[in-house]
Amino acid sequence: MIDLMQQGSALILTLNAPVTRNALSDAMVQVLSEALAQAVQIEDLRAVVLRGAGGHFCAGGDFSGFKRLIAVPRPEVGPDPIAVANRRFGALLEQLAACPVPTIAVVEGAAIGGGVGLAAACTVVLASDTAGFGMPEVTLGLPPAQIAPFVANRIGAGPALRLMLTGRRISAAEAMALGLCDEMLTGDHLDARLQHWLKLLQKAEPQCLRHTLQIVRSAAGRGATLDRAAELFALALRSGTAAEGLAAFSAKRSPLWALEADKP
Amino acid sequence: MIDLMQQGSALILTLNAPVTRNALSDAMVQVLSEALAQAVQIEDLRAVVLRGAGGHFCAGGDFSGFKRLIAVPRPEVGPDPIAVANRRFGALLEQLAACPVPTIAVVEGAAIGGGVGLAAACTVVLASDTAGFGMPEVTLGLPPAQIAPFVANRIGAGPALRLMLTGRRISAAEAMALGLCDEMLTGDHLDARLQHWLKLLQKAEPQCLRHTLQIVRSAAGRGATLDRAAELFALALRSGTAAEGLAAFSAKRSPLWALEADKP
Amino acid sequence: MIDLMQQGSALILTLNAPVTRNALSDAMVQVLSEALAQAVQIEDLRAVVLRGAGGHFCAGGDFSGFKRLIAVPRPEVGPDPIAVANRRFGALLEQLAACPVPTIAVVEGAAIGGGVGLAAACTVVLASDTAGFGMPEVTLGLPPAQIAPFVANRIGAGPALRLMLTGRRISAAEAMALGLCDEMLTGDHLDARLQHWLKLLQKAEPQCLRHTLQIVRSAAGRGATLDRAAELFALALRSGTAAEGLAAFSAKRSPLWALEADKP
Repeated sequence: MIDLMQQGSALILTLNAPVTRNALSDAMVQVLSEALAQAVQIEDLRAVVLRGAGGHFCAGGDFSGFKRLIAVPRPEVGPDPIAVANRRFGALLEQLAACPVPTIAVVEGAAIGGGVGLAAACTVVLASDTAGFGMPEVTLGLPPAQIAPFVANRIGAGPALRLMLTGRRISAAEAMALGLCDEMLTGDHLDARLQHWLKLLQKAEPQCLRHTLQIVRSAAGRGATLDRAAELFALALRSGTAAEGLAAFSAKRSPLWALEADKP
Repeated sequence: MIDLMQQGSALILTLNAPVTRNALSDAMVQVLSEALAQAVQIEDLRAVVLRGAGGHFCAGGDFSGFKRLIAVPRPEVGPDPIAVANRRFGALLEQLAACPVPTIAVVEGAAIGGGVGLAAACTVVLASDTAGFGMPEVTLGLPPAQIAPFVANRIGAGPALRLMLTGRRISAAEAMALGLCDEMLTGDHLDARLQHWLKLLQKAEPQCLRHTLQIVRSAAGRGATLDRAAELFALALRSGTAAEGLAAFSAKRSPLWALEADKP
Repeated sequence: MIDLMQQGSALILTLNAPVTRNALSDAMVQVLSEALAQAVQIEDLRAVVLRGAGGHFCAGGDFSGFKRLIAVPRPEVGPDPIAVANRRFGALLEQLAACPVPTIAVVEGAAIGGGVGLAAACTVVLASDTAGFGMPEVTLGLPPAQIAPFVANRIGAGPALRLMLTGRRISAAEAMALGLCDEMLTGDHLDARLQHWLKLLQKAEPQCLRHTLQIVRSAAGRGATLDRAAELFALALRSGTAAEGLAAFSAKRSPLWALEADKP
């Protein structure tokens, strides 16, 4: 359902349910969440890559699952199981958006509904020029509930609303213009570009990647964020990473953590 | 002063004071506010359209009104009536920005000062390619007081400041580049494009439009917003709208709420 | 180390340490901070310009300073002097971002690390088409600690992260596309464009410039910001600046505060 593959300092998570174009069943959401939780335990991990098998990224929510949920009446006590299932997908998006290492979505084919949410929550979105994006929820009689805040966070509330209120489908080129994807490649070059990004990230000191993400994502006020950033700066200088980095820079050699990036 | 016309599930509000290029008098602000308050009571309303009569959108604040305000000394007790009048315009912008259904500004000719504020507060801004935008307040010795936060919210604080601090006038093309308008049309195509947008919105289930706006505009933290979004999702599945939407999708027919959109 | 020059209603601050490409030593940060503090005392000041001598803007942190800091063990009591020095640079960026008058960065040559932070904190960034920007910190084993929040604030968290996590260097053209600089000029036109901006700002009533910045930067909620904006609006009408501005506008003459802008 989800294929895991470690490649150097990156973990590749592949949604693998081509029959449904990788639609997000409850089970898939749970497995993806567990895979993410384990991934970040890997020391020196520098990236998590999220992609889909079979030529599509993710077709979004699983319609047959929705129909099953509708068929069961709401229990008299306790929370509505429909809301619980929906919120669990939101928790996965939160987990992805808070992932301690950079996340890269590789989008081929369709990214629909929840699929757009998954991509929007990633640090980098690479798309095939034949990819298509859409959030048709309102035309199907339901709100783009969990994904709306993540799309708004990535491209701004106004552009997100103009997409979601019409439910219209857009091309990769339009997604580029909106900032929903960051780079658009012809099919042949998509994998090469992913490798290029992974190589770029391999030049970075791993702990610094995590700390940079922490600083930028900090929800503290600016002053408190700057205080914390100063501590992380001191930590880098005390821990020896900066000493190695500056020495390598002076000697025009690669620092120890970047040796892998020099391999052809 | 303000013409109201209902067209299908849209309400068209037209500023109609061509002699002053639809400048915003106190009376106009009040009538517009009342019209908006009534509009949102209309069940199944899917859009409020705001435009100007006589070839211009809105010339902004009413200079003769400002001169009258200056002429009256501040009363010894109570709030300054100048601040009160200015704040009332801000309340109209807040009302527009919080409108429970999508709002569409159609900008022809001049959008100046408060006129830019009105457009900036709308969900969608369509502009004629001959339209012009400007916030000349600082060159007239006053701050762009109520409109500044809405322009900053739409195009970002930096771009908004770079416009407002110089007071310079920009073309529709530059407004497009800045995100101050979303689509630029040659005069002939402006109305057709508005009709296209209204048709797109007619394909959406009306309650889902309102809920999507609620979710994106939520000022609650992300977790609380996602909790609320999950409830709205469950509501859509329990209420039958999603059942109708998914059934229509499977049958390749339009859902009941979109029948109007199929008419030629 | 820092050259100060007043030109009309603008103050030009020039980083002048060409040997290190204007790298930011502790002393330089302190002098710059004091210069800014004094600048804003100048009545009728309409702009602070920040630029570098010798063909470069600023090479960022001073490596030799970092090496000296690393060589001294952390004292047993009290804060880490490394964190303190780093945080002081953040305080300078906060001061720049909160400068009560508009700030204009003029970027030629290299803007690296802290140099990108200085530019990002300015209201307007003009760049030579041969300028280059980069935040290579993570490849040197340290986080872009103090500058990250200011770059994220200017160009958005996602684009900022995509630059900072790879440490890659970008051209002025790419910086334009990202919003890291606002205008790109060929070398010959950079100074003329700066003069054009200063002339535009001279058309503005000085107090209104300050109040516009205050309103847009306000961290208060929208309602409170609009309340305060209404007071500043009333102040402008009571103080006579609006009366002069509207009278000048009616008479098609320049207002008193803009006479300087009419000079050739």
